[in-house]
Amino acid sequence: MKVTQTRLGILGGGQLGRMFIQAAINYNISVHILDPDADAPCKNICDHFEVGSLSNYQTVYDFGKDLDLITIEIEKVNIEALEDLEKEGVIVYPQPRIIRLIQDKGLQKQFFKENDIPTAPFQLFNTKEQLIEANINFPYIQKLRKDGYDGKGIKKIDNSNDLDQAFEQPCLVENWIDFEKEIAVIVARNENGEMKTFPMVEMDFNPQANLVEFLISPSTYSFEIQQRAEDIAKSIASSLNIVGILAVEMFLTADHQILVNELAPRPHNSGHQTIEGNFTSQFEQHLRAIFNLPLGDTRSITNAIMVNLLGESGHEGVAEYKGLEKVLEKDGVYVHLYGKKYTKPFRKMGHVTIIDEDRQKAIEKANFVKENLKVVS
Amino acid sequence: MKVTQTRLGILGGGQLGRMFIQAAINYNISVHILDPDADAPCKNICDHFEVGSLSNYQTVYDFGKDLDLITIEIEKVNIEALEDLEKEGVIVYPQPRIIRLIQDKGLQKQFFKENDIPTAPFQLFNTKEQLIEANINFPYIQKLRKDGYDGKGIKKIDNSNDLDQAFEQPCLVENWIDFEKEIAVIVARNENGEMKTFPMVEMDFNPQANLVEFLISPSTYSFEIQQRAEDIAKSIASSLNIVGILAVEMFLTADHQILVNELAPRPHNSGHQTIEGNFTSQFEQHLRAIFNLPLGDTRSITNAIMVNLLGESGHEGVAEYKGLEKVLEKDGVYVHLYGKKYTKPFRKMGHVTIIDEDRQKAIEKANFVKENLKVVS
Repeated sequence: MKVTQTRLGILGGGQLGRMFIQAAINYNISVHILDPDADAPCKNICDHFEVGSLSNYQTVYDFGKDLDLITIEIEKVNIEALEDLEKEGVIVYPQPRIIRLIQDKGLQKQFFKENDIPTAPFQLFNTKEQLIEANINFPYIQKLRKDGYDGKGIKKIDNSNDLDQAFEQPCLVENWIDFEKEIAVIVARNENGEMKTFPMVEMDFNPQANLVEFLISPSTYSFEIQQRAEDIAKSIASSLNIVGILAVEMFLTADHQILVNELAPRPHNSGHQTIEGNFTSQFEQHLRAIFNLPLGDTRSITNAIMVNLLGESGHEGVAEYKGLEKVLEKDGVYVHLYGKKYTKPFRKMGHVTIIDEDRQKAIEKANFVKENLKVVS
Repeated sequence: MKVTQTRLGILGGGQLGRMFIQAAINYNISVHILDPDADAPCKNICDHFEVGSLSNYQTVYDFGKDLDLITIEIEKVNIEALEDLEKEGVIVYPQPRIIRLIQDKGLQKQFFKENDIPTAPFQLFNTKEQLIEANINFPYIQKLRKDGYDGKGIKKIDNSNDLDQAFEQPCLVENWIDFEKEIAVIVARNENGEMKTFPMVEMDFNPQANLVEFLISPSTYSFEIQQRAEDIAKSIASSLNIVGILAVEMFLTADHQILVNELAPRPHNSGHQTIEGNFTSQFEQHLRAIFNLPLGDTRSITNAIMVNLLGESGHEGVAEYKGLEKVLEKDGVYVHLYGKKYTKPFRKMGHVTIIDEDRQKAIEKANFVKENLKVVS
């Protein structure tokens, strides 16, 4: 498939699509976007923007039928439409069967089990009643099998009182893992089967919002641990035969076991720092993978920290950015605003990447950015 | 002026505008483009695209009257309209008086002379008859005062026979300079008067097309020479009080004098390698300058070579790119296609940046790219 003559469709027109387009511009790719929000971040920077539901069969089918290649920036899309498009010759990467698997955290966990991918023990329940009957030891984590994202659809159940708030829908339950660090590896695989991983990164979460807030790359854990994490990511990508990139989120336990938490078959928040911090960005890498181009060099250029820019608590309305000049005074500070008109508490409004050859200085600058750059209304 | 609430207009929607937009997306800037070509490279990636003449007073005035800030990606624009817009409160950077000066190579040279900027001796003529009467020693260079670009509007006059082909219009004449190297420095200046230069680069020209074909950054000339070149660039930016970036093209003579050749008050071909080769790109730097933001770190990350991707000789029609996969197999090769549908001999269709910590390897890869990546029809 010739890159410059391909009509590419993306399901979803948010920040991931937006950063993908910044990379796709370099290849003259004709990008078509479907998104339910008429003001989505990709609206004005693509060849064709269509407003419509990503979950509706007919909308997705009609959007895709005249395109050559379809990819996603969100997993919650209509799989049946993608499967039918695939049958009719439209290429869909990642493959619909993989999106279907990953849409359902229960199927994901079963896939890990069947393929000897290390993961925390789990149980699946269809109803809250079944969950209560099972009498599991507290504390544990209850996750909705479907539609959870960005910390939504996850509950920690500490004791029997918490069961009142437990989800009613089909769920999976995992023992509470007292992990030392959340880590992630992004792996890319193209049609030829070429595979490359980005260096392992370490994450800190905002406990209130349950969002990645601070990410550091590359990790300073031992080579052995990093190698193990990268091997796990590659083994998952191989088992899936995925085409595209795959973000693998993992826990590193106190005794340095690695347990896979969950997958995202698309560019991911844990790879944003690659834009400035690595020789190839995750967006360019996804593009190369789905167009079956040789994969790019994933090495780190230097220490990179990614800070999510979340809507400030107590502010809801048209977004304003305070402190932009102040943070841009520092060298190595790269601001990415996502083009969202309205802010609300914890909404992902942008991110900032901070690079520095001196890791400690990078951390100090990242803290400075967190303290000084605010999204208010 | 708040970056995210500014309506920015750009006169010209070609590749420079396109790469500027890739940077502007990070700041939520609402970009409005005016270009005479309905298929210009920026067409589908800006908020508002208008087809119209850049030389027509009314077209430029009407385009600009509801905008907050206007910049350019080409000097050949209607200055009177920009001056009137400026009077009415629209900010125009670079300032119209500077564009007016730079539009006319004769005024540019007089400016150099008046401000003690080293430049080759020159004479101005209004007609070919005056030129012939002056009886200048051969060989010399005749340049049109206006509208020359990319090697157009320049003639070498070797002997009296060549005078038949000489330009009829107002021109400037310079002695033929037998330079050792063409060099360039890009300098940025914001409203606060902060100034930063990018490291000096060395250029090789395609003698057939008279276009930059191969550029290497940073230069390996002595610190003293680089310092002198950067000081000249800063002194020009100061004398002009320019806001924005300014590309200063210079000759380094055999005895290592530096002579300024000409200026471009906008992102320039001699700065494309900054996208991957430097911590801040020339496009981001221009953006920071015109929005009066602190200027970014201009240091080189590593050796970077820029190769222009020109339409292959003998090919005219819908563009196809041969050898893309082959060149992308090499690490550190970054392809930028400009989104032009049609190719013709020597048309600038894109560029490729090659980076490598080993300078010799970078040169080898650049030669590989030149041999293997072709724009055909």
